[in-house]
Amino acid sequence: MAEQRFAASVYSSRLERAAELARDSGLDAVVVTPGPDFQYLLGSRAATFERLTALVVPAQGEPFVVVPRMELAALRASAVGEAGIELRDWVDGDDPYALALTGLGVVRRLGVSEATPALHTVPLATSADTAPELATPVLRRLRMVKDAAEIVALREAGAAIDRVHARMGEWLRVGRTEREVGADIAAAIVQEGHAEADFVIVASGPNGADPHHEVSDRVIAGGEAVVVDIGGPTALGYNSDSTRTYAVGEVPVGIRDAYAALERAQQSAVDAVRPGVTAESVDAAARDVLAEVGLADRFIHRTGHGIGLSVHEEPYIVAGNTLQLEPGMAFSIEPGIYFPGEWGARIEDIVVVTDGGVEPLNLRPHSLAQL
Amino acid sequence: MAEQRFAASVYSSRLERAAELARDSGLDAVVVTPGPDFQYLLGSRAATFERLTALVVPAQGEPFVVVPRMELAALRASAVGEAGIELRDWVDGDDPYALALTGLGVVRRLGVSEATPALHTVPLATSADTAPELATPVLRRLRMVKDAAEIVALREAGAAIDRVHARMGEWLRVGRTEREVGADIAAAIVQEGHAEADFVIVASGPNGADPHHEVSDRVIAGGEAVVVDIGGPTALGYNSDSTRTYAVGEVPVGIRDAYAALERAQQSAVDAVRPGVTAESVDAAARDVLAEVGLADRFIHRTGHGIGLSVHEEPYIVAGNTLQLEPGMAFSIEPGIYFPGEWGARIEDIVVVTDGGVEPLNLRPHSLAQL
Repeated sequence: MAEQRFAASVYSSRLERAAELARDSGLDAVVVTPGPDFQYLLGSRAATFERLTALVVPAQGEPFVVVPRMELAALRASAVGEAGIELRDWVDGDDPYALALTGLGVVRRLGVSEATPALHTVPLATSADTAPELATPVLRRLRMVKDAAEIVALREAGAAIDRVHARMGEWLRVGRTEREVGADIAAAIVQEGHAEADFVIVASGPNGADPHHEVSDRVIAGGEAVVVDIGGPTALGYNSDSTRTYAVGEVPVGIRDAYAALERAQQSAVDAVRPGVTAESVDAAARDVLAEVGLADRFIHRTGHGIGLSVHEEPYIVAGNTLQLEPGMAFSIEPGIYFPGEWGARIEDIVVVTDGGVEPLNLRPHSLAQL
Repeated sequence: MAEQRFAASVYSSRLERAAELARDSGLDAVVVTPGPDFQYLLGSRAATFERLTALVVPAQGEPFVVVPRMELAALRASAVGEAGIELRDWVDGDDPYALALTGLGVVRRLGVSEATPALHTVPLATSADTAPELATPVLRRLRMVKDAAEIVALREAGAAIDRVHARMGEWLRVGRTEREVGADIAAAIVQEGHAEADFVIVASGPNGADPHHEVSDRVIAGGEAVVVDIGGPTALGYNSDSTRTYAVGEVPVGIRDAYAALERAQQSAVDAVRPGVTAESVDAAARDVLAEVGLADRFIHRTGHGIGLSVHEEPYIVAGNTLQLEPGMAFSIEPGIYFPGEWGARIEDIVVVTDGGVEPLNLRPHSLAQL
């Protein structure tokens, strides 16, 4: 599936806003290397590693892109060309770090995107003679509050992954390995409207107690809970991420009450979402429900993460995050309970903060679906 | 395909050598985040991004790994567990950067792996109160000279991609789009023994003049040169990378002489490889042949790049690199000629420096294969 992007005007207004936020943050310039921030600002993934490609957004003046000459044609064919911004190309032997700083004047405070590898951060620091800071205040602010087009893109991604969960009975059966099931799910993720399958967790029985288990050669047995956590980017680059827990064959003995508490915890957190509440209060809403039934120490991770061009981004729904939610923020609500050596369960929806409260983007039932 | 790794003793001796090289470089410690350097030292890809996972190799003392508690089980199941090194786990709310520096004493010079994102480099710098340096002198030295097991792994990767080129006639035909052909090649890359297809370039006619063209919806016509540059990692993580240029239908008019010069240039560079010569002399060997026939300015990139756990790594075969080649170094030899708007061609083999000279790992014919 070919990379898609929004209209050129979307990117020019994002670039203007980035310069404005750089000024507000007291940064003299922000350097953004290929990755989701680059894609957000220019509509192109432009993957390179060892040769510097970088968007430079000065607080004062026009943005420009430093690019190896051999990448120039590809970059011109992307949104970068369409946006009409200056391209400064370089060849092996040139100093691309000096080129990135040319015309900026004295740089006292330089911001870099979170994904910038040390391979580039370290020589930039040397060239600028200043310790780079994270440009997170600029880029987080921009990316955290989604505009209308982005919400449409996330809604489409949510619907696409819901279609995969709806077909789970085709693949998730007793006697198959997690890996076999995972391969079928990965193919369906693409069939149902993603550019690729980014992650596929099929965690059966005791494997469900590890939140980051992926797949294994374990054969799925009857009477087991199976955690299925899946997602990927659409052609626009916006990600889906949704988890459901399934009962294969019989519903496992002794998990009903705990699972019912997990359902209530997830719903309680969703219900807590509205403009003005803090991220940590949404985390607490899920955690408190589990604590009431003695399951507090079974919920060993945060309640959620923001989502957009990255699967994990701001805002994080976690204790200590006093950020106030605003309309347009999009994140997961995914409490889980984990019993090492025995079983685990998790329920995850992406939600968007609206003016009036919350819009869930995943609409499959939450109950333990018996397959 | 599941991740594979070498025996545990391979990693413990690499860790010892890394500490020794850190001492030689005057670094107090080296911090390695997930990526190819991490895989080289611990046999695990251990992908995380926003939560710090890091191997710390002190110049004095035992190495340890900082890891989010939720990743602990997965990490224990990898080579990291087998190696028996200390795991320092942390949960949201802890300061993982302080944890990474605990016990190191005063850190005057801190090395970081090239892939470390600014998200971690910047807070590490703050925590250590020193500007991090690239740990490249340590990690480059280690990774650049392959041991016997690595050369076997690269030889297997080379044979696997040769099998894909050998089947090119199945897919590369007049009337198909580059994208259709590319999808078939990607599937074959996996079938023939790779964990995944990492890159697939099918550059037909004028698209061949862009060295970094990938695929497009352009329909391949008769009488065109088509550059096919493909590769991916095997289960051990070692990469293949090989380019051939094909003639689809008739051999294109007017390219024979230039293509013959390209063949001679590639062979001349391969023949120049032996212990003790410089990387730049190998680049010059290819470039001089093209210059003799007036094609110097058509060869717009370096002659090659090292290869191993990364597709692009040291040593780079480029003007200005006076590094002397040693037995065990592995890199591409891939001169190309590019005529914008018209056509392009490239020939690429991976070679390994041997005690006596050179061993090419790609063995398909170099001539313009007519399909």
